[in-house]
Amino acid sequence: MSSKNESDAAALASRLANEHVADVVEVLNGLDPGLAADVLQRMPVRGAAHVLGQPGVDHPQRLIQRMPEETAVAILGAMSADRRVDIFRRLPQPLRKRLAAKLDEPVRRSLLELLSYPPSSAGGIMTTEFVSAAADWTASRTLEHVRSVGAGSETIYAIYVVDPRTLQLSRALSLRQLILSHPQCRVADIGPPRQPVTVSPLTDREEVARLISKYDLLAVPVMDATGRVIGIVTVDDVIDAIVQEDTEDAQKFGGMEALDQPYMQIGFAAMIKKRAGWLCALFLSEMLTASAMQSFQSELERAVVLTLFIPLIMSSGGNSGSQATSLIIRALALRELRLQDWWRVAARELPAGITLGAILGLIGIARITLWQLAGFYDYGPHWRPIALTVGLALIGIVTFGSMSGSMLPLLLKRIGFDPASASAPFVATLVDVSGLVIYFSIAYVILKGTLL
Amino acid sequence: MSSKNESDAAALASRLANEHVADVVEVLNGLDPGLAADVLQRMPVRGAAHVLGQPGVDHPQRLIQRMPEETAVAILGAMSADRRVDIFRRLPQPLRKRLAAKLDEPVRRSLLELLSYPPSSAGGIMTTEFVSAAADWTASRTLEHVRSVGAGSETIYAIYVVDPRTLQLSRALSLRQLILSHPQCRVADIGPPRQPVTVSPLTDREEVARLISKYDLLAVPVMDATGRVIGIVTVDDVIDAIVQEDTEDAQKFGGMEALDQPYMQIGFAAMIKKRAGWLCALFLSEMLTASAMQSFQSELERAVVLTLFIPLIMSSGGNSGSQATSLIIRALALRELRLQDWWRVAARELPAGITLGAILGLIGIARITLWQLAGFYDYGPHWRPIALTVGLALIGIVTFGSMSGSMLPLLLKRIGFDPASASAPFVATLVDVSGLVIYFSIAYVILKGTLL
Repeated sequence: MSSKNESDAAALASRLANEHVADVVEVLNGLDPGLAADVLQRMPVRGAAHVLGQPGVDHPQRLIQRMPEETAVAILGAMSADRRVDIFRRLPQPLRKRLAAKLDEPVRRSLLELLSYPPSSAGGIMTTEFVSAAADWTASRTLEHVRSVGAGSETIYAIYVVDPRTLQLSRALSLRQLILSHPQCRVADIGPPRQPVTVSPLTDREEVARLISKYDLLAVPVMDATGRVIGIVTVDDVIDAIVQEDTEDAQKFGGMEALDQPYMQIGFAAMIKKRAGWLCALFLSEMLTASAMQSFQSELERAVVLTLFIPLIMSSGGNSGSQATSLIIRALALRELRLQDWWRVAARELPAGITLGAILGLIGIARITLWQLAGFYDYGPHWRPIALTVGLALIGIVTFGSMSGSMLPLLLKRIGFDPASASAPFVATLVDVSGLVIYFSIAYVILKGTLL
Repeated sequence: MSSKNESDAAALASRLANEHVADVVEVLNGLDPGLAADVLQRMPVRGAAHVLGQPGVDHPQRLIQRMPEETAVAILGAMSADRRVDIFRRLPQPLRKRLAAKLDEPVRRSLLELLSYPPSSAGGIMTTEFVSAAADWTASRTLEHVRSVGAGSETIYAIYVVDPRTLQLSRALSLRQLILSHPQCRVADIGPPRQPVTVSPLTDREEVARLISKYDLLAVPVMDATGRVIGIVTVDDVIDAIVQEDTEDAQKFGGMEALDQPYMQIGFAAMIKKRAGWLCALFLSEMLTASAMQSFQSELERAVVLTLFIPLIMSSGGNSGSQATSLIIRALALRELRLQDWWRVAARELPAGITLGAILGLIGIARITLWQLAGFYDYGPHWRPIALTVGLALIGIVTFGSMSGSMLPLLLKRIGFDPASASAPFVATLVDVSGLVIYFSIAYVILKGTLL
């Protein structure tokens, strides 16, 4: 490293000392990783750990890899447990082992335990630093305890009251309740006598987010099978989880795998891979439209005029399906809808599809009539039955689109898939093939003997 | 009301007394509004206000409308300011006026002020109850103050230190910092000397959510033009705002207006209205495909075989566009991307589109070749140039889809619209019309003199 870079790093480190940690992260993200690692090393260990522990840091593992191992271990050791495990997950296996071996024994044990949970579970995003109090303590003793251990805890706003013998969770207390209660009151008697809201380490983070949001909690305790608290998930982690889940859902709905990385940062090849898979699958399914059209070829040759409306009719089915799908996916994600409600959804989407299809059908008939009568285009002597065919096909296809678009996410959930995989392109493809069949069948019935 | 119902209500009210407020809300949501209003009236006023103040209550205005006005005023008066204004917004105008007139003067003033801000702004979701401390107070005096006013404040976890003369905000303190600092320390000296993160009452709630999430805050103060704090937005409101914004974005991306109500609760006519608008607009635009096909009618009649691939080719353009659009909308929502980066997006999407198009094009050519050689279908003597036409058209259309799908949200944002309005169906429609022109142009060049 040149002395120019060294002085840069020192100057930056001192300039950043009083900035908000989120702003420090933004500055570091803009630097070359080597320089950023250098700046971090020049900060006090606790400060560096606080910065590197922010979820907004891009590729924190690259900064760790660029530090002397002793510094890396010191910073990782001073970090909150949930962020530490997050960074360890991203380190290459040999370095991960070497660094873990150098951590203090209790830290190492907590790390290995957290690493054993899936990253999208409560265990995978929880931290093991939280405040607990024995049920027979008074409020003032508990507050003293909060003061003494507070600096090392991720949050002190939730205090977990445990049975002093069994260590089982008996009550969850907010710091607010503690402060507002009488100093001599036993903590077991503060607040209403109610089982606290808890999750298991394998609870999905989406469910954790839903509980925290529903009960307006600042943290939710994670309980093992014996009823002891092994960690907590805090509200800030949950916001990050909600944003990430919604991003995944949005990208899946767009018809691709979730990127898992910011758009501008993911590599070109990785992005192509995530997009090409679904695109090819949809393309292969959509090939059925070519097969469907091939089987109607004699009709097509006799009535080329029918082909004019194929894109119009097919896209309307796809659009109504896309509307229904986005409604149902979101209603499922927000738990407004349960799987058993499928028939209530069907009972809404059937009349909705018929109504919407009838609106479009009327517009379609009006369009053909207008063009014909005004002389913009000549649809031939049979323009009236052709217009009727288009109108009826629109009712049929829009209804089919709304029905299949709303049932698909429910079906996917039923068979254990993510309902968000029912993307707009997926539904459109599904509707396209059946839409062609509906269109040509209606045409066959109406135009048989005249055009066909 | 029958005496049966009366005893039901009394029994329910006492059974719910010890339940978590979120669970009480669930029970009330399942009741007939008349009975739910009756249960609420039988609870202590503060308890009823706490329950009715939960954002999860369905149609709280209906419960208020079913109570005697005195009870309604008492409950509304005891409610947190942000929820009170939320309910008032939904009340019919005459009742709103009558109830407001009966509120205590300070409550009424706060209500009218909050009502003056747009519901999606910081002012519209803030509460006016927060804890502030004078800059010359000690930590222990401030803690005493928190204890005395705590019960009436939405949150006591953020304390705003103001200049005792000008009342301007000088520091934001967390309860954690207060508790962990020395009792005789001046509050102005606690924590790093840094300007607190603030918003103005007109800041959009999406931006408020971004700041709270970025800086891991439990609340953000809302400051007026003179630098005084007029309210705070808390993290639980922000989670609700994030969830609501993401729901709106998902529904818009599905090609409709945001419902603003849960799917199972919105009325049938209201839902049709929200869906029919976009569906008709898309249908009218998609009519251009019929016009495009009409202008190629002589080619179509000479080469009906070309029509077989129209749905396949058009849908591929729509699918690639939908992928690109969902990526860019989400990147914009997460502030990963700024408007000025449009050319960097274009520089990614152009090669991505060509690559993805080439992959699909090769599959398409392979499909036609295979079907022809295996004898599944006879595309005629010119099947080779037809396969080439399909392959090249796929490259052109997928590239066009990726480019227009990625540029459309940026363009919408540039001209002041919500980028999330660039829905999957919108992009598909855009690509369909141009896709037809691309397909027939390529066909014309390649097949001229042979098939055309």
